[in-house]
Amino acid sequence: MKLSEGVEWTLHCCTLLAALPEGKAMSAKKLAEFFDIPPDYLAKHMQQMSNAGIVQTKKGPNGGYSLARSARDITLLEMVEAIDGRTSSFKCTEIRQRGPSGVSPCQYKTPCGIARTMRKADQVWRYELKKTTLADLQMLGVRETPPEQMIKAINWLKGLFQ
Amino acid sequence: MKLSEGVEWTLHCCTLLAALPEGKAMSAKKLAEFFDIPPDYLAKHMQQMSNAGIVQTKKGPNGGYSLARSARDITLLEMVEAIDGRTSSFKCTEIRQRGPSGVSPCQYKTPCGIARTMRKADQVWRYELKKTTLADLQMLGVRETPPEQMIKAINWLKGLFQ
Repeated sequence: MKLSEGVEWTLHCCTLLAALPEGKAMSAKKLAEFFDIPPDYLAKHMQQMSNAGIVQTKKGPNGGYSLARSARDITLLEMVEAIDGRTSSFKCTEIRQRGPSGVSPCQYKTPCGIARTMRKADQVWRYELKKTTLADLQMLGVRETPPEQMIKAINWLKGLFQ
Repeated sequence: MKLSEGVEWTLHCCTLLAALPEGKAMSAKKLAEFFDIPPDYLAKHMQQMSNAGIVQTKKGPNGGYSLARSARDITLLEMVEAIDGRTSSFKCTEIRQRGPSGVSPCQYKTPCGIARTMRKADQVWRYELKKTTLADLQMLGVRETPPEQMIKAINWLKGLFQ
């Protein structure tokens, strides 16, 4: 069970967008350059973030992506689901109904107990992701980014916006 | 993010093995027949369950798989990890170290905050799975299997063991 690499990429990109000065935006190309990731794939994933209402796009020469809402109002769950979807990691194919002991579907009064238990664990995972906001991730980044990197990042962004 | 269908199959197979009379075993071929699933793929997955010490094999004409331990001592987590592995669903490729602002690896004093947060959610999911045992799943099956299916299953198993 693996989350797509797009989850890692877009979480980092959103953390960077959260740090941009008011009114500024970054293109998918520049975001890809900042993290040295493939621009075409990233563009596709940023579009998914846009479709989910997490980022917004501004057209024009200084256009690009910015957060559509405050980082405090964007949960980790929303960001992960924008890329990975809302479908449970466990798919039930109702094998209990198959084979020599299977009976007609109307006789099964409850969803399969195995599926219910697996889906509950999936819900617990999603609930855990919902407890963290983009602002929390940004705070971790501010606290833990090496000072030398912070200076290099600020200078790179200054070059981009001047 | 999707769990392999082998997880669904083996969870159902183990629940059936938990219901077998003392000393009885079932081949992968018969388990596959009971659930109408592809025998070759199931055989591979049952081998993984055996490698994980969840089931044991008995050779000979009445041989096959049986539980290696009491169903009360087998957790859902063990069964899922036997098929899906123990690796976190979130893979961190350290993109924070890349691009124009990256600095030397020794300057990063903590694992990436995004990766830590995602891995914590993965741990919460695993902890939830650990709370359920195979005996719990078996109890759900006993309570919720349609009576007509229970009779058909018992008769099918009687035919197998007579």
